[in-house]
Amino acid sequence: MISLGIDLGGTKIAVAVVEDGVILDRARVATPQTGFDDVVSAIANAARPLLDQYPHVEAVGLGSPGPLDTREGIILFAPNIPGMDRVPIVAALQGPLGRTVVLENDANAAGFAEHLYGAARGFDSSVYVTLSTGIGGGLFLGNRVIRGAHGVAGEIGHTTLLPGGPVGGDGLDGSWEAIAAGRSIARDGGYVFGRDMTTEEVFSLAEQGDEKALRIVDNAASFTGIGLANLVKTFDPDAFVLGGGMTTAGDFYLNRIKTAAQGYLLGWPEPVFTLAQLGTDAGVIGAAAVATHQGA
Amino acid sequence: MISLGIDLGGTKIAVAVVEDGVILDRARVATPQTGFDDVVSAIANAARPLLDQYPHVEAVGLGSPGPLDTREGIILFAPNIPGMDRVPIVAALQGPLGRTVVLENDANAAGFAEHLYGAARGFDSSVYVTLSTGIGGGLFLGNRVIRGAHGVAGEIGHTTLLPGGPVGGDGLDGSWEAIAAGRSIARDGGYVFGRDMTTEEVFSLAEQGDEKALRIVDNAASFTGIGLANLVKTFDPDAFVLGGGMTTAGDFYLNRIKTAAQGYLLGWPEPVFTLAQLGTDAGVIGAAAVATHQGA
Repeated sequence: MISLGIDLGGTKIAVAVVEDGVILDRARVATPQTGFDDVVSAIANAARPLLDQYPHVEAVGLGSPGPLDTREGIILFAPNIPGMDRVPIVAALQGPLGRTVVLENDANAAGFAEHLYGAARGFDSSVYVTLSTGIGGGLFLGNRVIRGAHGVAGEIGHTTLLPGGPVGGDGLDGSWEAIAAGRSIARDGGYVFGRDMTTEEVFSLAEQGDEKALRIVDNAASFTGIGLANLVKTFDPDAFVLGGGMTTAGDFYLNRIKTAAQGYLLGWPEPVFTLAQLGTDAGVIGAAAVATHQGA
Repeated sequence: MISLGIDLGGTKIAVAVVEDGVILDRARVATPQTGFDDVVSAIANAARPLLDQYPHVEAVGLGSPGPLDTREGIILFAPNIPGMDRVPIVAALQGPLGRTVVLENDANAAGFAEHLYGAARGFDSSVYVTLSTGIGGGLFLGNRVIRGAHGVAGEIGHTTLLPGGPVGGDGLDGSWEAIAAGRSIARDGGYVFGRDMTTEEVFSLAEQGDEKALRIVDNAASFTGIGLANLVKTFDPDAFVLGGGMTTAGDFYLNRIKTAAQGYLLGWPEPVFTLAQLGTDAGVIGAAAVATHQGA
């Protein structure tokens, strides 16, 4: 089944015609910073030539940053795109594109691509964990995205792992993300070293053996391990797929995460730990897959 | 569809013929404390007259304490029944009963009954939380039990909510159960008051206004609230169904739990909070439902 996937990001919009996880053709445009109408036009203009060329495309999937109301097809708020508060993106696109449009959270879309065609291919269940500026994720079972009753399933970075711990962007204390995301590591580096630090600088210092930087990185890895162990006891997936910018630190970081998770899995079954395989294509491939597997 | 449900407990075995959640007939026997063969005989002897009377029973579901290997049909360990380590209960029962036997964790079975026929009837997704000596649970989506890759999905009481907190029966620190289960409240009462205490005594003192007892109860309610909020951000169910002995404390305890959960759900969708409705019948009804909905 052929479908069109759209990956709406803060700086670029990727569009692709996809068949069973394989990209047949693609286009890319800059994301307008001038509001909803221009974003809709940009998407439609990028997609239309592809739809003309592939008239058999049956459905369109749109992966978007959120929060979203997937049932109503509304972007509630897109932190990195101006003028996108409470916008009816599905209704606005269905006319110009002439197909059913299915809206999905971008982390769910990328994770679904990894589940069906990437690192978790062949497993019945998986959890995708994106370790990046923030921490997000998605739960997958069989050929389905577990969306939840209100579309917020898989927002695992907001689970509380240390009540009384650091306060996160959502105003709550001790979330996984507030302790262990890239932004949190940069925050801790800045506090510890008394100057502005990037996540990369903290990792680099840690790899060079700086004890304070290592402590920051180990602390983040410990809590990511706890978050993963909690997911075993809640959803018990066949596999974890880890993606996002922080995984580029490679084994240095991943081994620490795995060891930390194992410390909270004594006597429990251990899932497979894998790295995401599809790179930046996961977004469009997953958006297209959502359209074919989970359409209205 | 008619099926037979078996609820294997530490002191009694309940057996019932069930059609669409309605018990048509039932039997009950004491659980032999003399090992696996006697348990199998007791179940078979209780079930056979019912199967003779209802020959159209198509399948049998067995709810058992665990841990289990549901794929292989093995009870790995039953803490409250002697001589039940690594026993192939499904293979042993299929001959005498002449039907496919499906094994399921007892909390999943009870929760599935509440999901389909009880407190969560009509909801697409729910999470059952049993607040008892320990804390267990089950996740349900559509007409399915989310079992997980190794049958341990829903073991939510073992999620870590306070690294460095009290050590639980599994040897790990800071699990939901180690902080907030009935056994934990009794432990804290004993420590605080310097004598053996039951969970009920601690609750009773708290209701009478004893400040230390109230602090113990509030602490448990706080962490149960955090555990529920974490489930919203992971699985996002339509409803939470709360059951188990600790819910008999009624609104005094439930309101505290709900307030605590809301404190970690600022800006997040709130599911329905309900109490289990089927009482002790949930076990057999759910075991029967597993046989019809999730058979091999």
